[in-house]
This record gives sequence, structure tokens and C-alpha cells, in this order.
Amino acid sequence: MSITQSLSTPLSSSSSTFLAPSTFNPRSQVTLPVKSLGVCKCIAAPQEADTAYKTKVSRNGNIAKLQAGYLFPEIARRRNAHLLKYPDAKVISLGIGDTTEPIPDAITSAMSKRSHALSTVEGYSGYGAEQGERPLRSAIASTFYRDLGIEDDDIFVSDGAKCDISRLQIVFGSKIKMAVQDPSYPAYVDSSVIMGQTGYYQKDVEKFANIEYMRCNPENGFFPDLSSISRPDIIFFCSPNNPTGAAATREQLTQLVKFAKDNGSIIIFDSAYAMYISGDNPRSIFEIPGAKEVALEVSSFSKYAGFTGVRLGWTVIPKQLLFSDGFPVAKDFNRIVCTCFNGASNISQAGGLACLSPDGLKAMQDVIGFYKENTNIIVETFDSLGFKVYGGKDAPYVWVHFPGRNSWDVFAEILEKTHVVTTPGSGFGPGGEGFVRVSAFGHRENVLEACRRFKELYK
Amino acid sequence: MSITQSLSTPLSSSSSTFLAPSTFNPRSQVTLPVKSLGVCKCIAAPQEADTAYKTKVSRNGNIAKLQAGYLFPEIARRRNAHLLKYPDAKVISLGIGDTTEPIPDAITSAMSKRSHALSTVEGYSGYGAEQGERPLRSAIASTFYRDLGIEDDDIFVSDGAKCDISRLQIVFGSKIKMAVQDPSYPAYVDSSVIMGQTGYYQKDVEKFANIEYMRCNPENGFFPDLSSISRPDIIFFCSPNNPTGAAATREQLTQLVKFAKDNGSIIIFDSAYAMYISGDNPRSIFEIPGAKEVALEVSSFSKYAGFTGVRLGWTVIPKQLLFSDGFPVAKDFNRIVCTCFNGASNISQAGGLACLSPDGLKAMQDVIGFYKENTNIIVETFDSLGFKVYGGKDAPYVWVHFPGRNSWDVFAEILEKTHVVTTPGSGFGPGGEGFVRVSAFGHRENVLEACRRFKELYK
Repeated sequence: MSITQSLSTPLSSSSSTFLAPSTFNPRSQVTLPVKSLGVCKCIAAPQEADTAYKTKVSRNGNIAKLQAGYLFPEIARRRNAHLLKYPDAKVISLGIGDTTEPIPDAITSAMSKRSHALSTVEGYSGYGAEQGERPLRSAIASTFYRDLGIEDDDIFVSDGAKCDISRLQIVFGSKIKMAVQDPSYPAYVDSSVIMGQTGYYQKDVEKFANIEYMRCNPENGFFPDLSSISRPDIIFFCSPNNPTGAAATREQLTQLVKFAKDNGSIIIFDSAYAMYISGDNPRSIFEIPGAKEVALEVSSFSKYAGFTGVRLGWTVIPKQLLFSDGFPVAKDFNRIVCTCFNGASNISQAGGLACLSPDGLKAMQDVIGFYKENTNIIVETFDSLGFKVYGGKDAPYVWVHFPGRNSWDVFAEILEKTHVVTTPGSGFGPGGEGFVRVSAFGHRENVLEACRRFKELYK
Repeated sequence: MSITQSLSTPLSSSSSTFLAPSTFNPRSQVTLPVKSLGVCKCIAAPQEADTAYKTKVSRNGNIAKLQAGYLFPEIARRRNAHLLKYPDAKVISLGIGDTTEPIPDAITSAMSKRSHALSTVEGYSGYGAEQGERPLRSAIASTFYRDLGIEDDDIFVSDGAKCDISRLQIVFGSKIKMAVQDPSYPAYVDSSVIMGQTGYYQKDVEKFANIEYMRCNPENGFFPDLSSISRPDIIFFCSPNNPTGAAATREQLTQLVKFAKDNGSIIIFDSAYAMYISGDNPRSIFEIPGAKEVALEVSSFSKYAGFTGVRLGWTVIPKQLLFSDGFPVAKDFNRIVCTCFNGASNISQAGGLACLSPDGLKAMQDVIGFYKENTNIIVETFDSLGFKVYGGKDAPYVWVHFPGRNSWDVFAEILEKTHVVTTPGSGFGPGGEGFVRVSAFGHRENVLEACRRFKELYK
């Protein structure tokens, strides 16, 4: 690619290594204003000249409740600011959980073939089913949910889990109360705020009103004390968890399903990292008896096959999942998918189908195995430095404890002194304060180099 | 493809021709219940056994307001029912506006190349900018908005106009009042209902409360009488219009922009068919002076390059477009794009960039030219049969008047007697009653055959 060729300084051909602000990185193109005082101007007060013409359309008050730019663009912005300050620094990104390894050829060949076929009369296809192509829905059901009673038409193919999370919020609407693991993937809370399910942000506790934050920390084995939670309508639960890396056990998930059933709640189970599980912990909520009556599941090819840019995921909604009036949740989700979405790209779907072929499954396991080796290197590094380290075993995220310290301060210290981008734990909720998430997505030489620098900083 | 080879009866290799229900068509996989009495059961009352476990989560009342399945899946369902009734019929679909011609090789080669590159260290890319890749944003700005003062970062690349319409509804929220051309593309009204902007459906007038339906008919030259419209916050305006095929003139759009400015309204201008315009009518709302302060524009590669399945579109939001408090609309849209979306597929974006190369532009013009020839054939057919025919000149849709008749009855009559699928005008709003939309997307031999059958039916 001419992008890397244009660099004047030698570097390893790495998409997670950057030399200068002009180096190609799509995320660096995000033009968000400075958040130097902890308040992003893009969400703050009006800033245009009073003389400019203004419409009479009021700004959506729910969006105005958001406190800052979405976490990852904000981190990209800080990385870019760092690159401006240190133009010669070899910055390594272990921040945003973005895959770095090439997609195995067995998978890209299928996408290439489908692309070419679109130029032929026989191979051309226009609008596909909004719910996804039947062979892919069938392959997802049989690969990930075999013997779990999930049928092909319970599967809705999407352009990624993040997108489906917002579509699910549209389904549930503004009048529901949600619970979320704290810390957790920020899209759950942000999409809830946007849909009007919450009150205002309460600065003293760093929480939005009308959300149940279910604290997950080392003391409770990263599983919330459900007895302290008042009844939610919707429970977002991610296992293996982003950012803590903790995978819930069968006993814990059985407790969760019982809690949902006792309360008449619906669990949105995010299994986007399930293939990273090493042991016997459940890879799907539907391994738990009775879950189909209280849970749906979102998942993704992003972290399995390096599809973060290709965009492909899915959501499972069992027919047994019913609203209080007996109406199936799947039917309303189907209506939203048909009205607000038009299906994932047919080329991406061809890639997804190839992922689930015997060669594709082997290739995905190899990619995941590579990232898991990275994880081990990072865990061992922080372990050797005397830090308490969590996660890593069942997820590509390492959750490092810096007791008593502010996450953003640690993030800034690591960036300033090692030129390594991590993610501050508090970006995932107040329960993440004092932690930093280190992502295991990266080329091996970058992970090794980052760990060498960590050892130098914290020796 | 084995799909067509598996057919036992000879037919032209056409993706818009079907012999039997088992014939491949992605849309036919939509499993919506029967709408035999005009009310789709999928939206109607609860139907599960009372003994089934129900959660205590209330169904979203806004979704419950919707009256039937989304229009096009409903048409697919009716076509499939017809195929069950007449398994040997050679059904031709001129219903849903789905492209049928292969994508020119200059474009698919670029997508194929990008797919293969994803298997290389140099060519791999993960998460892209949520707003789209910079070269594509730049190419869209310079191809479609040259000299109109639109900058690269005013362009947000999407997975299609329909998806962006819903994201825009999320931006504006539940408290706005919208106006819409009547008839118009059903996603505008349906997404408004879903977001809670409307009251209930009023059966007597076939309208949702709290939406301004701006009647467009032959009497007013398909441009609404703006003096009769009470102030809306948002005005959806599609030109060339789907379904009427009417392209607004410069004078009409100047009126529209003045109306918006006088009322402080925001126009959402849908230009998805702009490249079909034959004459001098504006191809973008931004050709009208002052429009950047009151309008944004959504558009798509779907009908230009046959990307209905590839999924790629864009939205333009000028920096000058401000909410009443002076906050830029583009910044809130950016926040929604970052939180609820993760960018269009990188492979699709490579295709989009190729579309805007000199070869790609020529190839798109050829495809559009082909469909415009189809349009002429359909217009001439209905014209020769004595029907009043509208549209066609600037759009791939022909709007045929059947005065005094019910659209669904005409749709059913045409399907029953000619095995041709059209779209009933009333599916686009009460203003479409008495009309049928005939899509010009189809292989030539199918369009000719459909017209032959029309001539037989209505001779």
C-alpha cells in the first residue's frame, strides 16, 4: 500500500505502529474537539457565532446528556495529540481493541470470489434478506448453537454487534430501565442515554440516573451481587467481559438467568469474545437451561476473523422470548431490522460463510491462538512487575490494577513515558477506576516491544 | 449458480424471474405472517399461548403503533403466496426497486482486490473511521458537490440511505414534528413512528397523527402546496421522488428552501436517484442558495452501481446547519455514527471509490442508461394503453394512474392476470391511492415480456 510506502522513516509494516500524525490510520481521521479539561467541547455548550442562522429545531436533549465523545475516538484523539508532540516516537497502540493480523486467505478468497461474481448475470444479487442469507444463518446456528435449540430463523445477521446493540435499544424504547456490568463496553450505556432511558449524568457518582450499575471487581470475582440490584427490564451482560476479560462460570450464569426469570427481565448477552474462552465456561447464554425465555445474544466475527473493518455480526433472539403481553421480541426486532437496516453486505456475508467452513474455522482458531499468545506475554509482563493482573485467560484483554490511582493519569503516564496507547479503566464506567485495559491485539514485535517498555517504566 | 441450474423448467437467467417458491430469492426468506385481512399479524395482538413464560418487559408502544409489516417484505410475501398458487407461473418482479444488472467489472475488481489485500500485512485494515475512509469522502465531495461548498468532512459514508434515515431519526429524537411528501418512501414515516414522533394511526384518513402529509399529485405537479402545511421541524423531501418519479425544479426547491428558512425547519433531502435526472433539474439540494443552513442530504450507491446488496451510501451535513441553540447538527450526527455504527464495510468502500474513478463513472452511467431505456419501454407501454403515466423521465420509476381504483386491488389484478409484481401506490401513503408504481429495474427481456402482458391485459 502506498500509505506505508510514503513514510520516510523505516518501520515495521504494522497497522498498530505509527510514526507521525500523517501516518495512515482511519480512526485518526476522527475530528473531535479537545477534551483537555475532561469535557469534550463537541458535547458541551453552543459555540457558533450568534450571528449565524439557526433553525428552530431543538437539539435532542438525550444526546445532550452525553458527557464526552465516545471513548475510542477520544483515545484516538489523545494518541494523535501525542504524535504531534513526539513526531519521532514509535507509538504502539494496545488501546482500542482493533485486530491487526491479516484475514486468512480461505476467507478473503471467498469475499473476492463473491465480488467478482457480482459482475456476472448468474452471480449478481441485489437486496438480500434483511435478516441475512439463509446459508449463513444456518451455519451460525449449527456452528455456535448446535444442540442448544436455536433455529436458523432465530439468527439475525448484522453489520456488527455495536450496530445491533443500538437496534435493540430502538426495539426496547425509552421507557425501560437497564442494568449494566460496571465496568463494561461503553456502547451499552451511551446507547441507553441516547434512547432516553436514563436521567442526567451525576458527576458525584459518575453514573447516569436510572441505570443500575452492577459493580464487577476482583472482590466479587467480577460477578455482580445480584441481591443488591433493583429490578431492571434489560440486563446487558458481556462474557467474556470487555474490559475485565472475566468469563462468567456456569454457576454464575445460572444465577443470572434465575435473577432474570425472577424479575421478568431480559438479558442482552454479548458473546463477542466467546471463542477466546480456554476452559469450560459457557460460550453462549443458551447453554443455561431456561435462558431462551429470558435472554437474547449478540455476537460478531470482528474479533474471531479480523472482521473489524469488514463488518459482520449476528443476534440470536429465541422465539420463546416474550414481552409482558406475550408478543415475541423477535418479531419487533425483525420489524426494526426491516425498517432501519437493509442487511449486511453480501460480500461480507460470503466471508462469514467461509469463516464457518472447516478451513475457515481452523483459520479463525489460528488467529485467536495468536492473540492469546500475545495475551500471555502481556499477563506475564505485568505479573513479573508485581501488578495484580486480571483477564487474559478467556479474552484478548488484560485488566491491570493500579490501586488508588486515576485511570486517565495512568493512561497518560504510560503514553508519555512508553509511547504505548492503552485504555483507561474508568472509560468503561466508575467501576473501572484504578485499572487500565491492555489489548492483546497487535503484531507480535509490537507487543514484545511494548512489554519491554512497560518493564523499563515499572521495574 | 446452481440455484438457477436447479430449475426444472427453462427460463432466461434472470434474477427478477421466478418459477417456484423454492427458487432462490433472499427477500423471499422473510417469514412474515399472512396479511389476508389488511392487518399483518406480526404487528397485531399477542398470539402466544397464555401458559408460556412471559417477561415483565413492556412492549415498546411506538412499535406497536405500526400498522403492518414494512411494505416491501409484505410485497415479497404476496409474491411468494402467488408462486404457491401458480407454481408454474413465470413471475416477473417490477415491484421492489431492486437492481438486477451485474456490477461493472471496474468496480467489482476493486472490491476483489481489497478483499485479497486484507490477507496481507500491508493491506490489512481493521476498524476504519466511522465516518468513512478519507479518499472516499473526498471523492464523493468532488464528484457530486463540486463548486457547491461541501467539504470532505461534511460527508459521512454509510451502509445505505435507509440506515442513515434511522440514524438521523435518532439524532432528532422523539420530540420533533415531521413533514413528508405523500406519497413517499415508507421508511420516513415508519422510522418516525418507531422513534415516538407521531400519534396513533388514524384509520379514517390513513395517516399517523402529528405528521404533516404533503400531498403530491398530478394536479400540483407533484410539488406540495406549502402554504397549507403547518410548521414542521423536519421535512423529508425526496427528489427525484420515489415513488412518483417526479424531480423537483429549481424554482420548486428554491420555494422549499425558503419555506424551511421561514419556519426554521430542517430539510432531509433524499437524492438517491439524482443521477437518473435527464434535464436541468437540481441533482442536489445544495445547488439552491442558502440550502446549507436548512438542509442535509442522504444518498446512495445502490441505484447507481447496483449496490443494493453491497451496501454503501452517504449523508452530507453542512457545518452551517445548526439547532436552535446554535449547536451543529453534524456534531450530533457524528456522535450517533460513532456510538451506533462502526462504518461501512471496507470492501464496499473500495467499491465506492472505484465507482468514482473515470472508468467507474462511465460504467455507472451505462448501467443507469440501461435502466432508463427500460423506463422508456414501460412509459410507452402504458401510454399506448391510454393510461396517464407520470415519472420515468428523471427516475427509474413509472407512476401509473388507475383513477378511482384501489391500489392493492390493481396490484392484485396485475399479479393474478399477468404474473407481474408491481407496488401499490397506497403503500407509499394515502396520496398514492389509485396509482401503481412500476419499477424499471429488470433484465430487458423481462421488462419487454411484462409490457407484452400489460398490453394483453389492458388492451
